[in-house]
Amino acid sequence: MTKIENVAVVGGTHGNEFSGIYLLKKWQASPQLLAKSNLTINTLFANPKSFEENKRYIDCDLNRQFTLPDLVNNTLANYEQSRAKVINAELGPKGGAKTDFIIDLHNTTSNMGPTLILLKSDDFNKKMGAYVLSVMPQAIIVFEDQVSMHDHTFLASIADQGVIVEIGPQPQSVIRQDVLDWMDTMTHAILDFVVMYNKSELPALPASYTAYKYVETIALPQNQQGERMGMVHKNVQDQDFKALNKGDPIFTLFDGSEITYQGDYQAYPHFINEAAYYDNNLAMSLGEKITVTL
Amino acid sequence: MTKIENVAVVGGTHGNEFSGIYLLKKWQASPQLLAKSNLTINTLFANPKSFEENKRYIDCDLNRQFTLPDLVNNTLANYEQSRAKVINAELGPKGGAKTDFIIDLHNTTSNMGPTLILLKSDDFNKKMGAYVLSVMPQAIIVFEDQVSMHDHTFLASIADQGVIVEIGPQPQSVIRQDVLDWMDTMTHAILDFVVMYNKSELPALPASYTAYKYVETIALPQNQQGERMGMVHKNVQDQDFKALNKGDPIFTLFDGSEITYQGDYQAYPHFINEAAYYDNNLAMSLGEKITVTL
Repeated sequence: MTKIENVAVVGGTHGNEFSGIYLLKKWQASPQLLAKSNLTINTLFANPKSFEENKRYIDCDLNRQFTLPDLVNNTLANYEQSRAKVINAELGPKGGAKTDFIIDLHNTTSNMGPTLILLKSDDFNKKMGAYVLSVMPQAIIVFEDQVSMHDHTFLASIADQGVIVEIGPQPQSVIRQDVLDWMDTMTHAILDFVVMYNKSELPALPASYTAYKYVETIALPQNQQGERMGMVHKNVQDQDFKALNKGDPIFTLFDGSEITYQGDYQAYPHFINEAAYYDNNLAMSLGEKITVTL
Repeated sequence: MTKIENVAVVGGTHGNEFSGIYLLKKWQASPQLLAKSNLTINTLFANPKSFEENKRYIDCDLNRQFTLPDLVNNTLANYEQSRAKVINAELGPKGGAKTDFIIDLHNTTSNMGPTLILLKSDDFNKKMGAYVLSVMPQAIIVFEDQVSMHDHTFLASIADQGVIVEIGPQPQSVIRQDVLDWMDTMTHAILDFVVMYNKSELPALPASYTAYKYVETIALPQNQQGERMGMVHKNVQDQDFKALNKGDPIFTLFDGSEITYQGDYQAYPHFINEAAYYDNNLAMSLGEKITVTL
């Protein structure tokens, strides 16, 4: 891997996730607060119109518009599809990007705490997880490396290296200080890591650590007319990254009956009851617990 | 007070407050689940279009449209202003309503738990608070009786008696089972109370109880350009109905400095960091603790 020189810190990819937007305002007003030696750090407000309208998006989810075929498809021309092309021109282009590393700042309504989502499981990302955990022991590391960067739909996949900082619980369109402080701390930890990784001057890191690996996203129960029939079970609500075993209740139907988890693996739910998931009638993501060895 | 015969249970006054909407769906499908002896109970979905669009409102806050002058002002003709007139015709008209009592079901993103907001402090309402507390000890009773029903802007003020069930914390556009269950329980407690109050057959109630009385709503800090400069202090976040004393930190500015509470009374904040308040740059409401005697 070549040295990382050009970094982009992106906020407001979703207009109602306020932590990144307000941190960006602060850093844009006082760039020295974000500066690190030997890094060129640019900030980008990805979806300003959705922030003005206080919505996740205007036409479609911006953070699903970054596959190569979509980026070069000029018939995809709504607001977010257009923003994706502009951002790709500014930070990319994907496949040969002028930006070496992207940090994309997000909030969730789920009780995920300070979560770092890594899109690759190479040496750089595995060590980043270990370093962030050493600075923030309460952090959670999730690998979404089920597809290559080339095939990822995320904004952070424009560059050869990119991560998503995902912090909650925070209702949409709210600023919580605890969540803002976590995002600030995690962003600095990531940038400090990059500086040290570039110079091969990392502190001692543990030989292994616990993390989670994305497996699947599951739907809320619906009837045959496609109407929502139930909700996340109260035993699962807020229990992000707690084990869910076969037979555990997972949904409560509005008629009071319960549905149990029938998967064949011990699942670690996250994005539990995320508000933005309702658009697609999704209930939560499931992951597996893994041990990452350095 | 005349006997209460006609009751309206209203949900979806705000389209992204899901508990009332989903309870209404359940009760409309199975009216026997809500039935009480000697009461005629109607249900009303107040703002269906805002639910379809997954927003609090389309044009303006429906729950601020129910003063008499506004209800008779035909130049006020946007969606919510029109809905207010239709609802007033259906449940009212205000000042001589065919509905004796309205229960309006709301959610908040604030950590208010199961809160019952009473709009009058007469015998009926004071005893209702005592009865609800006897059934739900974790409930909070708030009096917003600073103006008369005539002058209230709330939907529940159409009838001579009306209350607001206000339950959180729940992000906008999410269904939490704990919150749904609280709302279901509180609605039934209120209806059971009405049945017993009508027959003068209330159980023994305590001679007094603790409640809160609305005093004021305070703004988030802004600079001279009207831009938000800060957020609710982390010590105050989630501490609804916990005492705030002069000198306690109340806001953190984005530059890290703190603003302290300088009021001349011991305040009990609620609706702390409510997402819907951001439209008007409001931070929280403040109340005083009171003792209600029966």
